[in-house]
Amino acid sequence: MPEFLELVSPPEALHTLLGHLPAQPQPEEVESVHAAGRVTYAAVTAPHALPAFPRSTVDGYAVRAADTHGASESLPAYLSLIGEVPMGAQPDVRLGRGECALIHTGGMLPEGADAVVMIEHTQQARPEEIEILRAVGVGENVLKTGEDVQRGEEVIPAGTRLRAAEIGGLMALGITRVRVARRPRVAILSSGDEVVPPDQQPGPGQVRDVNTYTLQTLVTQAGGEPLSYGIIPDRAEAFRTAAERALAACDVVVFTAGSSVSVRDLTARTIDSLGEPGTLVHGVNVRPGKPTILAVCAGKPVIGLPGNPVSALVIGGIFVTRVIERLLGLQRELPRPAVPARLSVNLASVSGREDWVGVRLRRGPEGYLAEPVFGKSNLIFTLARADGLIRIPAEANGLPAGARVEVVLL
Amino acid sequence: MPEFLELVSPPEALHTLLGHLPAQPQPEEVESVHAAGRVTYAAVTAPHALPAFPRSTVDGYAVRAADTHGASESLPAYLSLIGEVPMGAQPDVRLGRGECALIHTGGMLPEGADAVVMIEHTQQARPEEIEILRAVGVGENVLKTGEDVQRGEEVIPAGTRLRAAEIGGLMALGITRVRVARRPRVAILSSGDEVVPPDQQPGPGQVRDVNTYTLQTLVTQAGGEPLSYGIIPDRAEAFRTAAERALAACDVVVFTAGSSVSVRDLTARTIDSLGEPGTLVHGVNVRPGKPTILAVCAGKPVIGLPGNPVSALVIGGIFVTRVIERLLGLQRELPRPAVPARLSVNLASVSGREDWVGVRLRRGPEGYLAEPVFGKSNLIFTLARADGLIRIPAEANGLPAGARVEVVLL
Repeated sequence: MPEFLELVSPPEALHTLLGHLPAQPQPEEVESVHAAGRVTYAAVTAPHALPAFPRSTVDGYAVRAADTHGASESLPAYLSLIGEVPMGAQPDVRLGRGECALIHTGGMLPEGADAVVMIEHTQQARPEEIEILRAVGVGENVLKTGEDVQRGEEVIPAGTRLRAAEIGGLMALGITRVRVARRPRVAILSSGDEVVPPDQQPGPGQVRDVNTYTLQTLVTQAGGEPLSYGIIPDRAEAFRTAAERALAACDVVVFTAGSSVSVRDLTARTIDSLGEPGTLVHGVNVRPGKPTILAVCAGKPVIGLPGNPVSALVIGGIFVTRVIERLLGLQRELPRPAVPARLSVNLASVSGREDWVGVRLRRGPEGYLAEPVFGKSNLIFTLARADGLIRIPAEANGLPAGARVEVVLL
Repeated sequence: MPEFLELVSPPEALHTLLGHLPAQPQPEEVESVHAAGRVTYAAVTAPHALPAFPRSTVDGYAVRAADTHGASESLPAYLSLIGEVPMGAQPDVRLGRGECALIHTGGMLPEGADAVVMIEHTQQARPEEIEILRAVGVGENVLKTGEDVQRGEEVIPAGTRLRAAEIGGLMALGITRVRVARRPRVAILSSGDEVVPPDQQPGPGQVRDVNTYTLQTLVTQAGGEPLSYGIIPDRAEAFRTAAERALAACDVVVFTAGSSVSVRDLTARTIDSLGEPGTLVHGVNVRPGKPTILAVCAGKPVIGLPGNPVSALVIGGIFVTRVIERLLGLQRELPRPAVPARLSVNLASVSGREDWVGVRLRRGPEGYLAEPVFGKSNLIFTLARADGLIRIPAEANGLPAGARVEVVLL
C-alpha cells in the first residue's frame, strides 16, 4: 500500500517526533499537598538544613562520649543524671563532664553532649546516677545538623515527577507551594460517520465512541489534561475546522480516525494543512498500530491514531504518553515496571515488525504464566480481558512457549 | 524489649489483619467517564451484543463467499457491483447471487453477504463489474454479531479496578454510569509534641509534620480517601478523643506516632481502648517498621505506624495499601510490577528478618544496576533519592553484589 511505503520502527518514530518538540514546559505554582504526580519545573533547594538541630535517634541518655570510654557491663561508667530533654523544645540543661540527661528518640541534643547511649545499655543505679554499660563514640546514635540535607542543597532536581517521598520532603522543609510544569492540554478528536456518543442508542450500522474515553484516561494518567473535541464527521471541512480550533487551544492534538483508507487519508491531508513541518512519520512498523501518523504543526505535536480501540490505546501508550512526558520536562526516564512471566503457548509473529500482544496473568507452580488474549479483531473487551501487554521484538520470529516475557500492566 | 516479644513476619501479620476485616464494600454510582481507578461493586453484564451487527474488518467488497469459489489472479470471478454500504447506516442494497457491494472498514454487512474480499484482491473491470482475484471463505474479514461480547455476558467481574480498557468497554455498551465501591475513608492521626504543621516555622527541637502528607498521597494512590485529623499532642486523653472521633467517622484509622517508646506505648494503649478485639499484632519482623501495630476495633482496621517517615511510608505501602484494597473489594490481586536489576554492592541483613532497602537505578552495560541509597537514620530525603525499594527476604543473609533483584518503584 503506497501510504506505508516507508514504515519506521517505533523507537525510530518516537525519536523523530521527540526531536521536533520544545523541551521547555510552562510553569505554574500549586500547593505541595496536591502536587503528587506533577513534575517540578525548577530544582528545589533546601531553605535550611535537615535536621535543623542535632537529634537523638534512640531513647537513652545524652552523654559526652569521652565519659563512657572503656565502660562495660563488668565495669560501668557512672554519670550524674542532670535532667530530661523535653520533646519539641530546647533542652534546659547543659552537660558538663561526668553528666548525662535523659533523652527520647527525636529529642534535641543538649549543649555539651556529643553522643547518646541507648537505654538498653544503661541502668539507673540511684535516682541521680546512671550506670553506662557500653561505651559510645562521638556522634553515635545522633543525627548531626544537616545530615539529611544541607542548607542551599538541591534536594529535588527539575523535571522530577513528585511522589509521596518528595511531597514529604517538601513539607519537612516548609515548602508548601511548589512550581511545577503546567499539564499539557491534549485535544482528542474522534471521528467516523458511524460513531455516536456513548449516551446515545446506536442505529443500524452505528457504534458508540470508545477512543475518546480510553484516551482521556491515558492522557490523565500520563500527566496531561484531556480536552474532548467530540466526534467529527468524515468531511474535509469539518476535520480542518476542528483541528485548527484544537491546535490553537491545546499543546497536543490527537486524532483517532476511522479505520478505512479514505478516512485515514482525510486525517493525513488535514494534518498536513495545519502547518510546517507537518507529517514526520506515516506508518509505523508495529502491530497493532501500523497506520499511525506522527506530525509537528506550528511547533505542536499532532498524532493520528488508528481507529481500532485496541490499536489506539496500545499506540497511545507508546507515543502520546511519551510526548506528554517530554512536554512536562520529565528528566529522569525510568523503565516501565513489569511483571516477569513465562509465555504459556507458542506465539507467532512476522519478523521485522514489533508486535504487542495482550496477555492475562495466571499464577503457575513456578511464578506467573502469561496467556495471550486472542481476539480476531482487537475489539475493546479483548483488551479489557488482558492484564497487560508483552512486546515481541522486531528481530524475533515469534516466541516459544516457556519464553521469559515482561508483562507491562495495562 | 518486652513490647516486641512476639514479632511476626509481614505476610503473617497481613494475613491476620485481613482475616478480621469485612469483605463487603459500600456501593456508590459514578459517571463511567470519571471511574478510572475505581473498583466495580458488582459484575457488569452486557445489555446487548458487541458488535451489534456484522461488520467488515477491511476495505473491500461484500460478497457471498460461494460466488468467489476458485477465484484467482489468473481466473478471476466477475461480480456485479450493485452499490456502496454507507458508514453508520443500514445498507440499502441486498446481495443476490453474483453480486457485490463496496464496503469500508467497520461498515455493516448487507443482507445476503457472508464475507468481504479485501480491495487489494480485486480490480474494477468496468463501472458495474468487479474482478475478484482471490476466493474467500464464509465469515472471512467479517466480525460476527456478538463476536466480542454476547448479550447478558459478564464483561467486567465485581471487584475489578477500572482501567482505560474497561472504561472504553463500558462506553461501547452505553453504560455511562457504573456502581463502584465507595472509597474507604482513612483517618490519619499524626502525633508528637515536637511536630508542627509544615506552614509553621519550627522552634528549637521542633520538626515539621511529614507523615500526614506522605500517607495522604499513599492512601489516595491506593484508592482511599484520606482525612487528616491533625497533630495530636502526646497525652492519653488527647489521643483517645481524637481516635474515637476518627473511628466513628472513618473506615480505617492510621496513627503515625512518635518514635520513642513512651509514645508508642501511648498509641498501643489508645488502640486497645477503642474496642474489641483490639491489637492483633504488635511488632513486625521487618526493617524498617518493627514497631508496627495492627488492630481491629469495632470492626474497623486500626494501624499504628512508626513515626520515622521512611518506616511509615514503607510499612504504609505494605499494610495500609492492602487494607484499602480489601475494603474496596478488589478481587484479582496482580503482582506489584517491578524493574529487574542487579545489585551494585554487597548488602548485609539480619537473617530471619525481612529488610526493605531504598535503591536508585542506574543504566549499566547489561541492564539496570540497583544502588542502595544509604541513610544512617532513614530521613525523608533518603527515600526521595531512591527510585524504588528492594526486599531482602527473611531467609536470606544479605545479598551479594550482582544478585538479581526486583525494584518496586516508589
